Amino acid sequence: MNLKDTIRTIPDFPKPGIMFRDITTLMANHKAFREAVMRLAAPYRDKHIDSVTGIEARGFVFSGAVALELGASHVPVRKKGKLPFDTYEQDYELEYGTGTLEIHADAVRAREKVLLIDDLIATGGTAEAAIHLLRRAGSEVVGAAFVIDLPDLGGLDKIIRSGVPATALVAFEGH
Amino acid sequence: MNLKDTIRTIPDFPKPGIMFRDITTLMANHKAFREAVMRLAAPYRDKHIDSVTGIEARGFVFSGAVALELGASHVPVRKKGKLPFDTYEQDYELEYGTGTLEIHADAVRAREKVLLIDDLIATGGTAEAAIHLLRRAGSEVVGAAFVIDLPDLGGLDKIIRSGVPATALVAFEGH
Repeated sequence: MNLKDTIRTIPDFPKPGIMFRDITTLMANHKAFREAVMRLAAPYRDKHIDSVTGIEARGFVFSGAVALELGASHVPVRKKGKLPFDTYEQDYELEYGTGTLEIHADAVRAREKVLLIDDLIATGGTAEAAIHLLRRAGSEVVGAAFVIDLPDLGGLDKIIRSGVPATALVAFEGH
Repeated sequence: MNLKDTIRTIPDFPKPGIMFRDITTLMANHKAFREAVMRLAAPYRDKHIDSVTGIEARGFVFSGAVALELGASHVPVRKKGKLPFDTYEQDYELEYGTGTLEIHADAVRAREKVLLIDDLIATGGTAEAAIHLLRRAGSEVVGAAFVIDLPDLGGLDKIIRSGVPATALVAFEGH
């Protein structure tokens, strides 16, 4: 199955000039959804992953499924103000603005092996912030896997330079 | 396993007087996370579910995993402004305020069988709005399953009165 063909492109969302890659049409195809989850999980089946981390909100659909598939726990990284317990926070820049992400300070055990999953990597600012938070909480980030990469924005390279192996299932040139 | 024991209670979040049931500690336990997903999915294994719908954001962790487990597709219900294509929208009241939910107008096929999954049901306003949207998009909502119920707030009864069988895995009295 060609996963890329299941992803719809919406021109000028959320603002003029942006070609938005709409992953809801991939999720709406049960074979494509299953294949995406299996391909995200496959490289990590023998890596003894303790936890899968997802980034609010779309990413959770995939991170929850990959956690189940790998028999791992699930650790959410959320936008500021959503997590109820003590948190670490990290500011970040993203394609359309800036924000702050948080993780529960007790979300992972020391030296726990974590896999980061998200639906899309653009500039990599969000993923970089999540990796920073996971390391601050004490975990070892053993990989990052994305459904969609926008290679012209350089996000995957940024994550790899930070010392985390990173891959994506499909790539769209331009953005 | 007693799932209830894996859920942490945070007093006075997000405001004084609220006992917040923190499901991140359930997700952080890989056995509890797996058991929750399996128990959400179990009653629907023979119901020919086409799609699982999750509600932004925490709910997506469970709805993505249940969709994978049932071999179903995944349809997101999101807060207003997040979905890029044509949408239906529905206002709703929730425990701490009001909001608007959206679904893609083409998210489901006519008469598609959908299971609604969310992490928590309080007053049921959010779930009721999601069911309204799913029906407007043409689907048959065959059930709704939640991890946590706050029975004093009457949400499950409200969903059942709307004609959708609804269950929860654990209940916390008070709120």
